[in-house]
Amino acid sequence: MITVDIIVDSGVVLTMDGNLRRIPNGAVAIAGERIVAVGEANEIVKSYWAKKTVSAQGGIIMPGLVNAHCHIAMSCFRGVADDIDLLDWLHNHMFPLEAKFVSPRMIRAGSLLGALEMISSGITTFCDMYFFEDETARCASEIGIRCVLGEVLFDFPSPNTKTPAEGLDYTRMLLKKWQGHPLVRICVEPHALYTCSRDLLLAAKELAAEFSVPLAMHLLENAGEKALLKEKLPLRATEFLADCGLLDERFLAFHCVEMDERDIELFAMHGAKVVHNPESNMKLASGMAPIASMLKSGVCVALGTDGAASNNNLDIFGEMSAAARIGKIREKRADVLTALEVVKMATIDGARALCWDDEIGSLEVGKRADIITIPTNKPHLTPLYNEYSHLVYAVGAGDVDTVIINGQIVMEARRVLTVDAEEIMANVVEIAAEIKGF
Amino acid sequence: MITVDIIVDSGVVLTMDGNLRRIPNGAVAIAGERIVAVGEANEIVKSYWAKKTVSAQGGIIMPGLVNAHCHIAMSCFRGVADDIDLLDWLHNHMFPLEAKFVSPRMIRAGSLLGALEMISSGITTFCDMYFFEDETARCASEIGIRCVLGEVLFDFPSPNTKTPAEGLDYTRMLLKKWQGHPLVRICVEPHALYTCSRDLLLAAKELAAEFSVPLAMHLLENAGEKALLKEKLPLRATEFLADCGLLDERFLAFHCVEMDERDIELFAMHGAKVVHNPESNMKLASGMAPIASMLKSGVCVALGTDGAASNNNLDIFGEMSAAARIGKIREKRADVLTALEVVKMATIDGARALCWDDEIGSLEVGKRADIITIPTNKPHLTPLYNEYSHLVYAVGAGDVDTVIINGQIVMEARRVLTVDAEEIMANVVEIAAEIKGF
Repeated sequence: MITVDIIVDSGVVLTMDGNLRRIPNGAVAIAGERIVAVGEANEIVKSYWAKKTVSAQGGIIMPGLVNAHCHIAMSCFRGVADDIDLLDWLHNHMFPLEAKFVSPRMIRAGSLLGALEMISSGITTFCDMYFFEDETARCASEIGIRCVLGEVLFDFPSPNTKTPAEGLDYTRMLLKKWQGHPLVRICVEPHALYTCSRDLLLAAKELAAEFSVPLAMHLLENAGEKALLKEKLPLRATEFLADCGLLDERFLAFHCVEMDERDIELFAMHGAKVVHNPESNMKLASGMAPIASMLKSGVCVALGTDGAASNNNLDIFGEMSAAARIGKIREKRADVLTALEVVKMATIDGARALCWDDEIGSLEVGKRADIITIPTNKPHLTPLYNEYSHLVYAVGAGDVDTVIINGQIVMEARRVLTVDAEEIMANVVEIAAEIKGF
Repeated sequence: MITVDIIVDSGVVLTMDGNLRRIPNGAVAIAGERIVAVGEANEIVKSYWAKKTVSAQGGIIMPGLVNAHCHIAMSCFRGVADDIDLLDWLHNHMFPLEAKFVSPRMIRAGSLLGALEMISSGITTFCDMYFFEDETARCASEIGIRCVLGEVLFDFPSPNTKTPAEGLDYTRMLLKKWQGHPLVRICVEPHALYTCSRDLLLAAKELAAEFSVPLAMHLLENAGEKALLKEKLPLRATEFLADCGLLDERFLAFHCVEMDERDIELFAMHGAKVVHNPESNMKLASGMAPIASMLKSGVCVALGTDGAASNNNLDIFGEMSAAARIGKIREKRADVLTALEVVKMATIDGARALCWDDEIGSLEVGKRADIITIPTNKPHLTPLYNEYSHLVYAVGAGDVDTVIINGQIVMEARRVLTVDAEEIMANVVEIAAEIKGF
């Protein structure tokens, strides 16, 4: 018998591996930070003895979800301005609020709250773009959630950096400081083509190449942006990116609502990846991204929540449901964006998008242990014919019971164990009171 | 001091009354089946003494939600066939399953499960169309949920009735049997224009008029149906309905995805009402109903989940989020289908659609006590700037804590008190095992 730290059992294991292996009475054994066995429960117990057993209560055992695009600290602005178009929302609401309230204190409060919400809904990895990302990195490592973080870069001053050069320096500092951390990785994040000069983009590319990390940015979020870029750039947006040498397997674009077949072809050719944010795109009336076409062309598509100010939650179950449904509406056919395809977007393809699929995104021996359990003995999950269908069309964020990240049990029986949730909420309520007075 | 049965306090009361009164530290007093006071908590406690106090824990106190269209017993088929177009889904999956499995036993099992799920997600009234509705009526009265039920009528035999005449007789039996029941009301429900002859529609109209109850049916659910009706009918569908004399304030149409301005005008002119089912319409690729135009024209629009086989849940919070978001996508503007408008659709306008707004749908003195509480001290509901925004964009079905229907506490601290949930789920699991073997 081999002693391991944790065995997760009493459930159907959805491995999300290359063969999409589904193990009806499955179990996963964890030693330290990694998975050491995945298989039939009765086989696992023959070989492994665990210090701790986590029961899925007859439900689902699966990889933790990946939220591949958010602005975590904007949780402080959840619901402060709704039912407004993107540019009005940005210029007349978000930018003034950010100018006034973004500070290391606010970033810390919002990051802890956002991480708490994400863990509670089964997200084990998130990719973030915002300000003072060193604070977010610290919060993530404290609470024990995995992340890929980038300081937002643009041509004008930010609450954290006065110039684009300062932004790049800050990013370099983060890249060095967090190198080798098991949970926190840094990426390079120019904001968008309409806010970054060609020089800034090229410098960002150099930095990302130097450290071999992803370069991620907003792209073609709505028709207004597309029109702006047509005025500003000498080439179509994706061709401009290719011309700058940005399009490669480490390039990740958020939104991509206004991409057409030519853009998709370019992405497919270069192995560039996309994050789909359906709930935010709908709420801001940005449009419907051509995800079915992307998948058909072999483009890797992940899911993201965007910030809580434009969503208004950090819940990938909501995005899965929205992605499957809006994809069908866009294509006027119900057989696209199937439940299985969407669950892949939320797990292994999320990991691929963040260039971390060698270690996370599926339950396989040797990978880091990022695992969630979802008991299904509830009225709204009864009966159960197909787990993928339930995950996309019936499971809610509150159905996640236990969350393991990097081998650590971070949530058990819905209680997050690593931080004081009441204190985190109280800190944000205090900041919100100041925002209300603004 | 006046003794009352229940006081609900410690929360913001959203009355949803004609003035949309919002009472920050509010309370609602209940005597027997009805609301006897709504106001500031410190005023209420001066006049009323309650045998039982329900605390909203600093959250939201509001009218129970109305699910204005479902097929409750289809909960047994939740997730059995997904990612398929409407007509394929109906003819090759649902109809064969129904022919084989619909029986009083299945209806009872599915109705109890569906009612359990609905109560757990804050729904206090539902409108149903299916078979053996007498079973559903019994289940609803046992579990204590309010409903408006109609036996589906069409030209061909159903699992319950061999002829349209039998269907009408069965409906008449229901109308007499349940007359005066505080929770259960009966309506008349011809299935749709493509499944009912003019004669059947006229007979249904007579019956509904005789008992002064709503007449409800599916209408223009997708482009395929619209094309069918163009072939079959001498007039455009809504003109045909008007010609039959069906369009009035007691007429309720489900879906209405393919309605245009002329149809909306006709509905507005006659006071006919609409139930919007956005999640089902998306999942079946049926399309986007022109809800913003309907609201602009003054048409009353309620929300419905449709059956759990095409959704796959009975959750009005999901419909609120979907309605707000898909409405914005359809109109390409973010300022339509505001959070407040959508909460109205789920409460008072749901009650109006079912012709029951004299007694339910808002918190007002004299109305029946259908009330839910939603504590908001949770990470994903922090901070809170606007309650309507939270209800539409952030609250999940699992956030509802206490449900009172007709003055009875049916759920407390998320536990449904009136039935044995484990037994209900076990019965459906047994039926699902038979379905899996089919």
